[in-house]
Amino acid sequence: MQMAVISAAERSAMARARELALEGPRGINPQVGAVILAPDGSTLAEGHHRGAGTPHAEVDALSRLAPGAAAGATAVVTLEPCNHTGRTGPCAVALIEAGVARVVYGSADPGEASRNGSGRLRAAGIDVTRLDEPEADALIADWLFVQRAGRPFVTVKWAQSLDGRAAAADGTSRWITGPEARAHVHGERSAHDAIAVGTGTVLADDPQLTARIEGRADAPQPIPVVFGDRAIPETAALRRHPRPLRTAGHELDRELRALAADGIQSLYVEGGPTLASAFIRAGLADRLTVYLAPTLLGGPRTALDALGVETIDEQRRLTVTRLEQLGSDLLVEATTESEQ
Amino acid sequence: MQMAVISAAERSAMARARELALEGPRGINPQVGAVILAPDGSTLAEGHHRGAGTPHAEVDALSRLAPGAAAGATAVVTLEPCNHTGRTGPCAVALIEAGVARVVYGSADPGEASRNGSGRLRAAGIDVTRLDEPEADALIADWLFVQRAGRPFVTVKWAQSLDGRAAAADGTSRWITGPEARAHVHGERSAHDAIAVGTGTVLADDPQLTARIEGRADAPQPIPVVFGDRAIPETAALRRHPRPLRTAGHELDRELRALAADGIQSLYVEGGPTLASAFIRAGLADRLTVYLAPTLLGGPRTALDALGVETIDEQRRLTVTRLEQLGSDLLVEATTESEQ
Repeated sequence: MQMAVISAAERSAMARARELALEGPRGINPQVGAVILAPDGSTLAEGHHRGAGTPHAEVDALSRLAPGAAAGATAVVTLEPCNHTGRTGPCAVALIEAGVARVVYGSADPGEASRNGSGRLRAAGIDVTRLDEPEADALIADWLFVQRAGRPFVTVKWAQSLDGRAAAADGTSRWITGPEARAHVHGERSAHDAIAVGTGTVLADDPQLTARIEGRADAPQPIPVVFGDRAIPETAALRRHPRPLRTAGHELDRELRALAADGIQSLYVEGGPTLASAFIRAGLADRLTVYLAPTLLGGPRTALDALGVETIDEQRRLTVTRLEQLGSDLLVEATTESEQ
Repeated sequence: MQMAVISAAERSAMARARELALEGPRGINPQVGAVILAPDGSTLAEGHHRGAGTPHAEVDALSRLAPGAAAGATAVVTLEPCNHTGRTGPCAVALIEAGVARVVYGSADPGEASRNGSGRLRAAGIDVTRLDEPEADALIADWLFVQRAGRPFVTVKWAQSLDGRAAAADGTSRWITGPEARAHVHGERSAHDAIAVGTGTVLADDPQLTARIEGRADAPQPIPVVFGDRAIPETAALRRHPRPLRTAGHELDRELRALAADGIQSLYVEGGPTLASAFIRAGLADRLTVYLAPTLLGGPRTALDALGVETIDEQRRLTVTRLEQLGSDLLVEATTESEQ
């Protein structure tokens, strides 16, 4: 038995494999990268997954080599090779057939059907080692969440005055928060697969829901999802969004499962109060980002409405994970004890 | 003319004079301390003011010396000697008659009737110098505020969930904030001359309104002031407060002037939502201290109610002067643009 020591060449190949992974799309499948190393640590081939129905990363890398060229090589892969025949054959078998001597992988495969590729590899006499770095799971955190929860990871965002209002009595709200907070929101939009608003917000504010980031005209754009019954006007700014508009009904849990089935791993819920409160009330808010503006508004336009907290024992305690000053505003990031 | 240079002995006498000042009571008059120095810098006498109707600090110090003993001496006083005959004669005259050669003072006297004691001293040939340190005005900040505004300096405090609620739907609220935040509140109570609540809070919560500070059984206790019409029950915990209870009506401005006339320089408004909102709405909140608990409550029990902000241009912008984590809570201190 070989020692479970990981060489410097393997570590650096893993970092490269993560870069390769990000060249693939987010979707139903995870982003995975692979590097095939010769016994002397030099790179023989690189590969990454390009989305459901296309070869997995390690198979993509092997396909770039002449038959027999991977004999005795080491495969460095960001995710445990699968043990599952889906639209493609099991990667474990492809690695065994290629004559690979060693496999170093990052994240463990959580899939019911696909997992334990490492066991299959070991049974074939291949040395298998996990390189357990925080970057491994972070790379596919949302995908791992979807595998566990069956729905996208949900961030609920709102901006409010210090006293918890989203607008003045007449509904006007521009601008409570400053330019730094608004720029931060555009970065968040771009970092999510989809962005959700209620029909009320569409009708009241006519938002574009695009990620507008200075100097990044090619910033990824989230898919706009409008929750609610009311019709979206033909003239709505949303209809000019670069991604096709989706609509969703009131059964949040079912709608979220449908989004996950279409490869949406993360959802950014941007408002308004009705939709944000519905997600929190249903225990479907995994992360909150609250932009607190140094102002008081008072009055009826609260940023959240009823959350079903009838008595203090039912309060929804948060764990604050980050506090950041953005210009004169304060960003509070928190996690909830969601009811997945 | 002598140079306006301040000696090390004079600086250290001023620090001592500030200590002496704090031995006197807060009230209608400022806290003032004085030290008389011999020409060689040694201390001849110390004094401080003991409240309205008693000698001012410099006169108190001079009274400890034999006639003629202050000839050629330097008087170091935390506040400009007065030029006013009230219940006591003008300090400027007392210093002139004592034959003092030099006066070093801290804060300028802002009083209409009492100011320009330094002019009168100079006219008598005495060398007068102001030692302009931030500690000077800080010592009597609330008193200076009262002189300018004609009312106490008002701090409005509340505790809320992140979403701006003071309680769950049924009114229960114990404990939103943690022990660190609650200990901080007791320190704040002790640092104010009086503490205000509405009758609604007295009836709902039966608060003690005492400053309970671990290891400080002798912590100064604020005078409790109850605003509103409803009767305070004979059994209310407030009635066992060590300071006599005051009551006040709805005309906040008039009530504040009455408090100032009775020597209350600072008021800590502790609730509930109705009273806090009334002070803010009236432009009578000079400083806000908001304890934000990492929890969500939703529902109708907002920590503030209407503030008269009908449209966003009327929002009440704040300047955040301090952000502090207290256990798992966050303290936001801010100033408002009050309408004094």
